[in-house]
Amino acid sequence: MAVYTRVSDDALAAFLGDYDLGKALSFKGIAEGVENSNYYLETDQGRFILTLFERRADPQDLPYFMALKQHLAAKKFPCPAPIADKEGNVLRELEGRPAVIVTFLDGLSPSRPSTSQCRSMGENLARMHEALADFDGVRANALGPASWPSLWHGREETAESLMEGLSGLIESDLKAVAASKPQSLEIPRGTIHADLFPDNVFFIGEQFSGAIDFYFACTDALAYDLAVCINSWAFEDGKEFNYSKGAALISGYESVRPLESAERDALPVLCRGAALRFFLTRLVDWTDTPEDALVRPKSPMEYATRLAFHRKAVSAADYGA
Amino acid sequence: MAVYTRVSDDALAAFLGDYDLGKALSFKGIAEGVENSNYYLETDQGRFILTLFERRADPQDLPYFMALKQHLAAKKFPCPAPIADKEGNVLRELEGRPAVIVTFLDGLSPSRPSTSQCRSMGENLARMHEALADFDGVRANALGPASWPSLWHGREETAESLMEGLSGLIESDLKAVAASKPQSLEIPRGTIHADLFPDNVFFIGEQFSGAIDFYFACTDALAYDLAVCINSWAFEDGKEFNYSKGAALISGYESVRPLESAERDALPVLCRGAALRFFLTRLVDWTDTPEDALVRPKSPMEYATRLAFHRKAVSAADYGA
Repeated sequence: MAVYTRVSDDALAAFLGDYDLGKALSFKGIAEGVENSNYYLETDQGRFILTLFERRADPQDLPYFMALKQHLAAKKFPCPAPIADKEGNVLRELEGRPAVIVTFLDGLSPSRPSTSQCRSMGENLARMHEALADFDGVRANALGPASWPSLWHGREETAESLMEGLSGLIESDLKAVAASKPQSLEIPRGTIHADLFPDNVFFIGEQFSGAIDFYFACTDALAYDLAVCINSWAFEDGKEFNYSKGAALISGYESVRPLESAERDALPVLCRGAALRFFLTRLVDWTDTPEDALVRPKSPMEYATRLAFHRKAVSAADYGA
Repeated sequence: MAVYTRVSDDALAAFLGDYDLGKALSFKGIAEGVENSNYYLETDQGRFILTLFERRADPQDLPYFMALKQHLAAKKFPCPAPIADKEGNVLRELEGRPAVIVTFLDGLSPSRPSTSQCRSMGENLARMHEALADFDGVRANALGPASWPSLWHGREETAESLMEGLSGLIESDLKAVAASKPQSLEIPRGTIHADLFPDNVFFIGEQFSGAIDFYFACTDALAYDLAVCINSWAFEDGKEFNYSKGAALISGYESVRPLESAERDALPVLCRGAALRFFLTRLVDWTDTPEDALVRPKSPMEYATRLAFHRKAVSAADYGA
């Protein structure tokens, strides 16, 4: 939540000169996204977001993300649509960073998604998967199971300091997910968002108005995207599973794209895997952030408590399916 | 440049229910101002800024700032105008903080103000002073000369570590300004902004479109406001005085409100005092910010080099008057 790179008004004016967007009327750094610098940009032609990609973004991945959002926008799925300059380029450079201008999406992120918002999220997740069915970009999931041992290694003591016995539990989660991996590869794969937390989704009232922040998008099991949503939308106050919200997500999803039986069977292990992924990346941030940093990282414990739920789940029915 | 307090969508909806602004269509934390949390807020009725006042703001000062901006807005001087709720209150509470909704101003802050922007700034500074001539609010300048010894005390070594000999020079500046204080009290006083850096001013192209961030506003010498502008607008790359820009600021100001001869005489000491004020507050931030903080404070040295210029100035003519 920060602006890392400042853009001078002169640099902005020169940059905008290459687009058919008119001149800037307003330009403000916004606290959206954690990895890049984002600016609210208003011109004669409307409202936009200007994103500058900071060091953590791999420049080689950017064309994939641009193509993905262009594909979604062309299918009328509401997302930030990259705007091409006069020569047709969407990826540009500004202040020494890769940069893109995208359309502005109305809407607010729900702090505590309602059951009807969960249902709408499920529906729109399935719509997004369908819209991406003929997208031919491919990107490996850099935070998939193969990455977890290296995230975990050396952080066992930190986990133990957060909760006694947690280290052994995480080991068992890693083994359980690894053991089931062959099955999960047999379920339908495609392009997924992989980070569809409520923070990355906008609503106007109960109406879904769009998804943002596609920078973890990758090629993986479609039902894993639903598992990420179950973890981030259906657990209340970071702990208690809300069965109605889980059921709303799944039935909303299935109203557009019914799950195959193999996907339903895989749901508990996918949910456990998704919780592990967020537990581990939060644990890394927790360990690596200096104690006196301005921004404290989110606690990994929210995901440790979700993992406790997933360990006991035996079927998709436990999630409301 | 940060958002310190998060506002949930539910809290925002409840808060907006007390206004005639319709419902929220967009809500984003923006990186504007260094002391408070600011949000871009769009509703059915238009665009606004929602400000939450953080700890450094003295709640007792807030009614003064609100009244000042309401006064300016009523006089059609472009500034963020506080919006009253259905019961006529402008200062409210949200997420445990004093909060206000103000109108949104179009425009961009100039990174390197042009000479014509300097002239326009001078004109509009004088217009602001005239619009405030009948404002009856009073607030002492908390960062006036009386505050400087306590800001300075104990930081002599830090100054010396920035530049050998700087400590003695600052002592001489403090003495010189203190010695001239009786004169500067005889010049016209009124309500001043006291922090009109280019960051706090918007332009659309060369056209002044408004001033923001009135949270240092106070009752002091009018020409001190011009001295703050000379320091922050007419020195290029933080060092070199640009005579044309100084002349543009002063002649722009005088095209609306001619300076009295006592004000012209006081200009060098006012400029020196303004540079001291920003040198000292930056020195405090420099000393008090941990080395590994995410946001490095601005270097006090930019103002040490301005002080070197002011020490040699003998009359307003040195600034382009």
